[in-house]
Amino acid sequence: MPAQRMITFTTDFGLTEHYVGVMKGVVYSINPAAQLVDITNAVQSFDILDGAIAIAQAYSYFPKDTIHLVVVDPGVGGQRRPIVVNAGQYMFVAPDNGVLSLVYEREERISVRHITSEHYFRQPVSNTFHGRDVFAPVAAYLSKGVDAVKFGEEINDYARFTAPKPKAAGPNSWKGVVLKTDKFGNLITNITPNDIPQIFDGSSQSFKLTAGKAEVSKLYSSYSAGSPGEIFAVLGSTGFLEISANKGSAARLAAADRGSEVTLVLTGA
Amino acid sequence: MPAQRMITFTTDFGLTEHYVGVMKGVVYSINPAAQLVDITNAVQSFDILDGAIAIAQAYSYFPKDTIHLVVVDPGVGGQRRPIVVNAGQYMFVAPDNGVLSLVYEREERISVRHITSEHYFRQPVSNTFHGRDVFAPVAAYLSKGVDAVKFGEEINDYARFTAPKPKAAGPNSWKGVVLKTDKFGNLITNITPNDIPQIFDGSSQSFKLTAGKAEVSKLYSSYSAGSPGEIFAVLGSTGFLEISANKGSAARLAAADRGSEVTLVLTGA
Amino acid sequence: MPAQRMITFTTDFGLTEHYVGVMKGVVYSINPAAQLVDITNAVQSFDILDGAIAIAQAYSYFPKDTIHLVVVDPGVGGQRRPIVVNAGQYMFVAPDNGVLSLVYEREERISVRHITSEHYFRQPVSNTFHGRDVFAPVAAYLSKGVDAVKFGEEINDYARFTAPKPKAAGPNSWKGVVLKTDKFGNLITNITPNDIPQIFDGSSQSFKLTAGKAEVSKLYSSYSAGSPGEIFAVLGSTGFLEISANKGSAARLAAADRGSEVTLVLTGA
Repeated sequence: MPAQRMITFTTDFGLTEHYVGVMKGVVYSINPAAQLVDITNAVQSFDILDGAIAIAQAYSYFPKDTIHLVVVDPGVGGQRRPIVVNAGQYMFVAPDNGVLSLVYEREERISVRHITSEHYFRQPVSNTFHGRDVFAPVAAYLSKGVDAVKFGEEINDYARFTAPKPKAAGPNSWKGVVLKTDKFGNLITNITPNDIPQIFDGSSQSFKLTAGKAEVSKLYSSYSAGSPGEIFAVLGSTGFLEISANKGSAARLAAADRGSEVTLVLTGA
Repeated sequence: MPAQRMITFTTDFGLTEHYVGVMKGVVYSINPAAQLVDITNAVQSFDILDGAIAIAQAYSYFPKDTIHLVVVDPGVGGQRRPIVVNAGQYMFVAPDNGVLSLVYEREERISVRHITSEHYFRQPVSNTFHGRDVFAPVAAYLSKGVDAVKFGEEINDYARFTAPKPKAAGPNSWKGVVLKTDKFGNLITNITPNDIPQIFDGSSQSFKLTAGKAEVSKLYSSYSAGSPGEIFAVLGSTGFLEISANKGSAARLAAADRGSEVTLVLTGA
Repeated sequence: MPAQRMITFTTDFGLTEHYVGVMKGVVYSINPAAQLVDITNAVQSFDILDGAIAIAQAYSYFPKDTIHLVVVDPGVGGQRRPIVVNAGQYMFVAPDNGVLSLVYEREERISVRHITSEHYFRQPVSNTFHGRDVFAPVAAYLSKGVDAVKFGEEINDYARFTAPKPKAAGPNSWKGVVLKTDKFGNLITNITPNDIPQIFDGSSQSFKLTAGKAEVSKLYSSYSAGSPGEIFAVLGSTGFLEISANKGSAARLAAADRGSEVTLVLTGA
């Protein structure tokens, strides 16, 4: 195991303060050869689902043996446990609050350990910043080759939630939700080809998709296929159905955002 | 060619999602020794001119042989070509939509190749995220020493536009435009010393410069030369005339922003 | 002194432009082996106190011999001097405008040098971007092992200010200030356990703390101890008393922000 193992950062600490920089300083103080890379530090504050989506979308693109540090931790200082997780080809260090739920969904072999070996922590451990005092040091020692078993016992009652799935609302209709709005204004819904294959399988199934003020009946293969001002659907790089516009913000055009209800009705072949 | 060649990122993918992190994961998976550095990932969404300005302002400060990855790509999934460009001492990987136009303006020897060697791409190639599937892998292979000729044939009909220049509006007057507003509120115009040398050459040419509500008649050599609340002109580090305030936002004071018209009138020596 | 010495960035240049990227390009052009890490580039524009807080909160978490580059520089192009500072185990490169004041407060042995050796600068030196032309090159040469004495003479009249401390407003009352609001909406006050030990020492001293519309009488040990919608106090990871909410923005709930007055009254044991 090489000492320059990669550590990624997925947090809600933002970029406007010193918090993420401090975590990186702590890592480098323990392992100066660590290679650090940000996935995003702009997860919505306190928003475990938003963090779960970010890490699930990104982790598998990194080299084997990458250590993913995921700190969205509104329960810091309370009863939630810190965990180290071995899932597939990757390690994860996170609070046990469900933020890894969508990783668990995708990986068959998962080993979750409750981190209890406090001699790996930065002392004294604060009640408000375990990113600095617990998670960063553990990730740093992992990157130096300390074995996951050294941090604590395996557990099976780790926290996990199910991602919100679209629900049938009638024989040919479903209700879903906007999971997030991205920087471009794409409304990323929770609808995937697994849920409603008919509209993705090339059978020219016609449909009506609504979110906010938008009513969409076209599925295009790329953003640039849309006309100016048109709102349409695209199967996004995330694997989810997106409501989008060409060089414009669908979120603004539709007056919809994260949490908005989405309805999909099949209207004929 | 050393394996740790540097790759810079100039994109409109933002920092609030996982997109840039995923691109970095793809690069590191191909070349773990690559050295990655962000120029900016906050180019205005879909805004090719804004991306063109960012990369043109920054590329020449990097070490020889740096690979500049520039992804502002509203046409992803459509007909625009991916290109690899050899310009001066640098390589560029970008969509062929003009985003490198201001680099082309500055470099005498340019070689542009249409990237067609799909075996270098991440498969399957999506229609919505060529940053991940095309541009990041090509930059990674370049950084490992793969020769540019391996990616495709040289082309001469690559897309380029001319940067907006100030236009004469009378014998002693010009109309220009605000190219961008920076984080400090400086209004960066498209006026350079080449365009209107009289006001920069020390001949004490008096002038009247207007943008939004601001009327400016002073050219200072630094921001700190201005009085509190005063709006004045400065020749900025970008090489463009800026409308600025000392410790304040000229954009707010002038109620002007990107795209605002700028007029300059010479009023005497 | 190894060539891969770490350089941190604490600036107000933001992430929306190429400025920080250009500084990194300049560093790498001088020392390709430098290891660069951002503390934050989102210091409030022109705000020396905000920069002073950021670097003081972060510098000591980095490895010994780290070079901290701190550029909040509204006086660029004017009379303020560039300085290189040896303080404790770290080096600092900054404008001499007080931005290192809170570092000076914490370190006993300080050596400040006025940087005058212009042959280390990038030429020509602009009047508007010494981050690029002066500070980045000096940090890069330091990281290559150039001794601090080579940059200029030691000075003793360097600029420093005292951090705003809470002031007694009566026998059992104090007035303080909100130093900053963080990304979570925590209102970080200037009150520390040194100032008013009674409320932190476990003696169950009751108190009334006000800021904006908020009136707080509880001190919790973690954010998660609060009830939904409750505003309370926490001793934050910064060492300052914070006014906070559990999974919510205290700043929004209290309608308070940076600069808001804070009053603290002891009301009995």
